[in-house]
Amino acid sequence: MDQRVSFITLAVADVARSHQFYVDGLGWEPEVYVPGEVLMIRAADKVVLSFWSAQEFEEEVGPINRGDGVAPITLAHNVATEAEVDEILSLARTIGAEASTPQRRAWGGYTGYFADPDGFRWEIAMNPDPALGAIVLP
Amino acid sequence: MDQRVSFITLAVADVARSHQFYVDGLGWEPEVYVPGEVLMIRAADKVVLSFWSAQEFEEEVGPINRGDGVAPITLAHNVATEAEVDEILSLARTIGAEASTPQRRAWGGYTGYFADPDGFRWEIAMNPDPALGAIVLP
Repeated sequence: MDQRVSFITLAVADVARSHQFYVDGLGWEPEVYVPGEVLMIRAADKVVLSFWSAQEFEEEVGPINRGDGVAPITLAHNVATEAEVDEILSLARTIGAEASTPQRRAWGGYTGYFADPDGFRWEIAMNPDPALGAIVLP
Repeated sequence: MDQRVSFITLAVADVARSHQFYVDGLGWEPEVYVPGEVLMIRAADKVVLSFWSAQEFEEEVGPINRGDGVAPITLAHNVATEAEVDEILSLARTIGAEASTPQRRAWGGYTGYFADPDGFRWEIAMNPDPALGAIVLP
């Protein structure tokens, strides 16, 4: 099995609300949009980020854990500068997301989080390690 | 904010167990491995899949939802043929994963799932749509 991810699929309560946040709010381009079912967005070369109706997700994958707390996953969006971290978190706030105040982390980076409408956490990160930057930065 | 994901981070109970499954079992190459803390694996161009100690995840992100059921996310690994779907699910079984019997789906594809040691579901998928194949297949 090659070490590659083709799709990241997030189960969402309301696909229209995801569309409003990611497409109308962040300005991202949908690759596929089937109202009420699924929204797919290209998130990297050969990688699609998919927002799938939680109802359909549960029918295929199984009952979702609906207790309190956050999902055991975050998506990170790395940028080259601290100013970009601040800007993106501000932008997220303007479209209604809750966003934390970015912090310098023990490992030397500068990051903060925002939550999408389903509570999925995005980490906006500046990692000063040039080797890691070379791996993930555009 | 550009439409791109740099890291997919999964909170795991035991990073050594993730290493055993993904590196020793599937033969994937670690990019970064800090025992007890984090395992990072390149999963696409500019995308890193990261297995982070749930304890450290919770200290930074917040308490994880630990109720019953599956996490509201799947990762898909798309392949070109149905035979590859069968092969990879068999491989997953040989390294101790629970894997479903693949099925033809209403949308025309052929897919099945396996669970990693933390219960994260991987969908192994053959999607017959050539347009989608062009987007995600190597």
